[in-house]
Amino acid sequence: MKALVFHGPGKSAWEAVPDPGVQEATDVIVRVDAVTICGTDLHILKGDVPEVRPGTVLGHEVVEVGDSVRTVRPGDRVLVSCITACGRCRFCREGTYGQCLGGGGWILGHLIDGTQAEYVRVPHADLSTHLLPGAVDSKDAVLLADIFPTAYEVGVLNGRVRPGDTVVVVGVGPVGLAAIATARLYSPERIVAVDIAPARLDAAKGLGADAVATADEAEQLVSDLTDGLGADVVVEAVGVPESFEMCTRMVRPGGHVANVGVHGKPATLHLENLWIKNLTITTGLVDTYTTPTLLRMSAAGRLPTASLVTHTFQMDQMEEAYDVFARAGDTGALKVLLGEAQHDALTVRTP
Amino acid sequence: MKALVFHGPGKSAWEAVPDPGVQEATDVIVRVDAVTICGTDLHILKGDVPEVRPGTVLGHEVVEVGDSVRTVRPGDRVLVSCITACGRCRFCREGTYGQCLGGGGWILGHLIDGTQAEYVRVPHADLSTHLLPGAVDSKDAVLLADIFPTAYEVGVLNGRVRPGDTVVVVGVGPVGLAAIATARLYSPERIVAVDIAPARLDAAKGLGADAVATADEAEQLVSDLTDGLGADVVVEAVGVPESFEMCTRMVRPGGHVANVGVHGKPATLHLENLWIKNLTITTGLVDTYTTPTLLRMSAAGRLPTASLVTHTFQMDQMEEAYDVFARAGDTGALKVLLGEAQHDALTVRTP
Amino acid sequence: MKALVFHGPGKSAWEAVPDPGVQEATDVIVRVDAVTICGTDLHILKGDVPEVRPGTVLGHEVVEVGDSVRTVRPGDRVLVSCITACGRCRFCREGTYGQCLGGGGWILGHLIDGTQAEYVRVPHADLSTHLLPGAVDSKDAVLLADIFPTAYEVGVLNGRVRPGDTVVVVGVGPVGLAAIATARLYSPERIVAVDIAPARLDAAKGLGADAVATADEAEQLVSDLTDGLGADVVVEAVGVPESFEMCTRMVRPGGHVANVGVHGKPATLHLENLWIKNLTITTGLVDTYTTPTLLRMSAAGRLPTASLVTHTFQMDQMEEAYDVFARAGDTGALKVLLGEAQHDALTVRTP
Amino acid sequence: MKALVFHGPGKSAWEAVPDPGVQEATDVIVRVDAVTICGTDLHILKGDVPEVRPGTVLGHEVVEVGDSVRTVRPGDRVLVSCITACGRCRFCREGTYGQCLGGGGWILGHLIDGTQAEYVRVPHADLSTHLLPGAVDSKDAVLLADIFPTAYEVGVLNGRVRPGDTVVVVGVGPVGLAAIATARLYSPERIVAVDIAPARLDAAKGLGADAVATADEAEQLVSDLTDGLGADVVVEAVGVPESFEMCTRMVRPGGHVANVGVHGKPATLHLENLWIKNLTITTGLVDTYTTPTLLRMSAAGRLPTASLVTHTFQMDQMEEAYDVFARAGDTGALKVLLGEAQHDALTVRTP
Repeated sequence: MKALVFHGPGKSAWEAVPDPGVQEATDVIVRVDAVTICGTDLHILKGDVPEVRPGTVLGHEVVEVGDSVRTVRPGDRVLVSCITACGRCRFCREGTYGQCLGGGGWILGHLIDGTQAEYVRVPHADLSTHLLPGAVDSKDAVLLADIFPTAYEVGVLNGRVRPGDTVVVVGVGPVGLAAIATARLYSPERIVAVDIAPARLDAAKGLGADAVATADEAEQLVSDLTDGLGADVVVEAVGVPESFEMCTRMVRPGGHVANVGVHGKPATLHLENLWIKNLTITTGLVDTYTTPTLLRMSAAGRLPTASLVTHTFQMDQMEEAYDVFARAGDTGALKVLLGEAQHDALTVRTP
Repeated sequence: MKALVFHGPGKSAWEAVPDPGVQEATDVIVRVDAVTICGTDLHILKGDVPEVRPGTVLGHEVVEVGDSVRTVRPGDRVLVSCITACGRCRFCREGTYGQCLGGGGWILGHLIDGTQAEYVRVPHADLSTHLLPGAVDSKDAVLLADIFPTAYEVGVLNGRVRPGDTVVVVGVGPVGLAAIATARLYSPERIVAVDIAPARLDAAKGLGADAVATADEAEQLVSDLTDGLGADVVVEAVGVPESFEMCTRMVRPGGHVANVGVHGKPATLHLENLWIKNLTITTGLVDTYTTPTLLRMSAAGRLPTASLVTHTFQMDQMEEAYDVFARAGDTGALKVLLGEAQHDALTVRTP
Repeated sequence: MKALVFHGPGKSAWEAVPDPGVQEATDVIVRVDAVTICGTDLHILKGDVPEVRPGTVLGHEVVEVGDSVRTVRPGDRVLVSCITACGRCRFCREGTYGQCLGGGGWILGHLIDGTQAEYVRVPHADLSTHLLPGAVDSKDAVLLADIFPTAYEVGVLNGRVRPGDTVVVVGVGPVGLAAIATARLYSPERIVAVDIAPARLDAAKGLGADAVATADEAEQLVSDLTDGLGADVVVEAVGVPESFEMCTRMVRPGGHVANVGVHGKPATLHLENLWIKNLTITTGLVDTYTTPTLLRMSAAGRLPTASLVTHTFQMDQMEEAYDVFARAGDTGALKVLLGEAQHDALTVRTP
Repeated sequence: MKALVFHGPGKSAWEAVPDPGVQEATDVIVRVDAVTICGTDLHILKGDVPEVRPGTVLGHEVVEVGDSVRTVRPGDRVLVSCITACGRCRFCREGTYGQCLGGGGWILGHLIDGTQAEYVRVPHADLSTHLLPGAVDSKDAVLLADIFPTAYEVGVLNGRVRPGDTVVVVGVGPVGLAAIATARLYSPERIVAVDIAPARLDAAKGLGADAVATADEAEQLVSDLTDGLGADVVVEAVGVPESFEMCTRMVRPGGHVANVGVHGKPATLHLENLWIKNLTITTGLVDTYTTPTLLRMSAAGRLPTASLVTHTFQMDQMEEAYDVFARAGDTGALKVLLGEAQHDALTVRTP
């Protein structure tokens, strides 16, 4: 089959590799219908994630058709979660699958071959795939593999957004936009989007932000909107120290800062000001425990998933798709979708 | 009357000042029976808390006898909380009295005259004082004015200690010891006390720590006790960057770091490691919403409050008491108590 | 002034009574701009609520203009909550104002004269009134005095509605309709409205119900929609045993039954079936702790409050309004609003 | 092998039956070291649980030695939970294993052969067994298979016991006693035990009840202890309507009634009084999600499990053990333990 293979920092290629095979009785092999590229993939390509060995197939977001041992049968149309889960360790039993101690967690496209390929092996398939309702299109479902659960769990739920709140989302790339879309599920009074790119702020408005601001304007705006108190919930969706520190300045006493950004450097925590403010700061890898709920919401037409997709490619245009996604500043790319438009029949392989 | 008056950095004296009088209809004037000194008072004396103007009477911890407008009557024996509360602002309505927007919060011994005096004016008396059950001795009650609610709310409850947890308390001065005592209310599997002073570690054992460690040994010990995972809850009760950063290294994925320490400098938050760990980090000033519960627990003999008192003085020995408390390393002082042993009759003044 | 006076079962009149005066320093006297009638008032009129002594002015829902001691000044436009609160007792400190032990709770139009009058005395004014933002019209605000907080707190929040849930509201009179409107704040997957009156089911659709059913059809419909599991949350908003019992049959294992209805008779709890179902059943009088949030939501145009008002009267048409409201089956009345359309100037009396 | 076989109402025998064999790849066969009898078994024997077909081996509580496919190996010493769990359905994913939709839940000794036998087949072994730490004796562990998780989850955690609470446990048979023991983990101010049998009230005192009362005295005592307010948490552990109804009379406004009892008849819910009281009433089958925590607590010597065992028998004395347990009023039996005292070597069978 063909797959996007990592060959060390800055080098990758869509090339022929051996087909994956079942290695454990709980694996499934899934033919990939649709897949997207995550910002984290760009980090991997740069060499920022040293655990990814050269030769690894990239990609940890996918919507697929597959078969499995128990809950998935050949021919089933499934969503492959970016997080796999053994289902038996102490963390899986509490639904914190991202921290799985039994060989799961974030491994696809990280510790094992990922989903930017024609076929992918998914370990612990029963807890790592979700049957796709017929009403959910692949274009929508691909957004539920990683980005929407991340924004919802790590941003909105960790941040405890409640009706009537003032919510600030700093950084409205794809995950920040998904945070806006899912924060709206809790009917905040207002959502303020902060970014440096006007185009992204426009997209934020389209997804329901009530106010937008550049980084320079943000603190003053939030102060004005909240009588100087600060926001109830601030979501960090950039991943740089300056952004995180700004978040801790914009939150009200007793408020929540929910970090979603993937950070490469430490930030300064101004405890000399913050020790007295009753803050709650959360970090987190997505657990995907909300994927079933988000699937139901999507099937009911209540999530604007597909509106994040700005570019669509065929699978064998993977390298071009990476290029468009990496130059998002120029291309305006939010999420890029790769996949086949139609299939006469699903050809699924049984383990 | 006599009171301990702040005269700028490094200078204070027990001297004659005018008696306090009722200024608002919601004030009470309370005769001070017993009072203690807080570590924060030492910071104020050094000049670290610039809001405290010279001339201010220090002291924000007290047990008293007083009278008031509605719930407190002349002759009532009351606990004066370190936090006063208007009861009407949005924060008071949610029980976060420490963040009161209506003129309360931490003001005694900070923005107005405090309790290290013979008499003290307590604003918003109805919500800032608590009737003392007869079964609660002044020696016990004085610990409930600040230190026990602080340790319990900001350490144990913010940290969400649960039965079966491994809890680490870093820094076992008085507030750390109170965190150990109140963490036990939730029956953790084990409590590990960390400090540099052997005498304090001994005190920690006496209050129920199951294991103790110096700062050098702590990380290895916690790792060994938890199969390398880390502690469920880590309470920071020192207030320096090194200590806070150690806390973030000792907590397990999905765990809680509850900051109780009063910090004067920023700390480094290693988000490059922590973004993926599903941590919850909390900060906070005490709200004293648990004071009624702690009073009930104390009356029922279920809190080892008095065991933190190592030295007792008469009120007019205030300066000597400060000296003993400031040189805790030499004197072994935990909490010092100031007060009159007996009163023939309570002489209370009506507003 | 004129007021609606209860003269024993079945008898009431809009008649001249002495003006109310300030009795406690915490009272305010409020001139009534707008008021509505609650279903409970009809119960009182029938004699079902024996605590209401003949001679009492009815009415516990109102929007008013008033003055007070501290947070309310003469000339302020305020919302008078149906629940008054001392702010100092153990229940008020936890925000459960409805259970106030200090002389508050549900007393207006119940234990003391109510708001169906030209002027009303409101005890504990600081915690019992809310300043009205200019953006909130009296017509909207009157719905926030009782019915919307009741539906939201006792139905939606007690029932723990979450995004993606299936919610059933049994009984879609005014409070059931408000439950639908506020359940939507949490973006359930679907809301099912159940009633016997087709007109009310139509109103439910207008407020966002996704499906409607008569009592006969409801159980089958809910089963069909949920693969036989039952609803996540069922809100009882009728107040008769048959309705409550149907709710306990329609809820899924692990689900919530939130009782909002005012009951006059016991119901049968089929513990022989329910002991094993992990149910949570809640009851409750409104506490109005969400009134500030609902006011913000209303000011931001996010609550369809006014859409429940079907009939408007002048204050001196009180008896006619009662008649229209009591014959809701014929008149189609949901909420009836009484009040003056315009005021040249607010004439407020200072205590 | 030998097993206790149900032959219809009132008839059972310890008799030879075929050895169990592995039927699914996820099964284990476990040799039973120790087992106890549950009150529910007596109900089954009477014929009250019609799903139990004649020919079924009884027993759903056991401590065993077994082997399995993944997390359990031949020779491992395991606890077999009374609840088995598929680990994949929506309920298992939320930890509500008792409601498992994938073929688990309460099936041992109910829908399939149980554990009162020399060997037992345990389906879904990975999520239905727990490795036993060496420090946990079989005598202690047997209490963790059903009764302690039931009391803790369905009584204490559903009831939300908190430090400082007044907790009432109505019915102090084995599960009520375990509720007392596990309520103490949350340091309530006081626990009141209610029963009709003086011997059981004595046992309750031994396990930490602070006050005891007969059913006649209970309501007055609870009122006296709580200034007429009622208890914060009331645990029903009898299973008859009168007891449940008494619980709803003894709880304070805003309190919790946690039903643990297995009921055969409906109860009356006095909504005409309770609608206004802000009650939370919960029911539930145990999910055993706390079994790992309770095992840790037991290994650390923090649970008085074994103190509930009043009688010990050899496995082949099963019928005598049933007789002693059924006549608890005469024999004073709390829990009866069946098992072999020593084993030279564990003989485990591999699937």
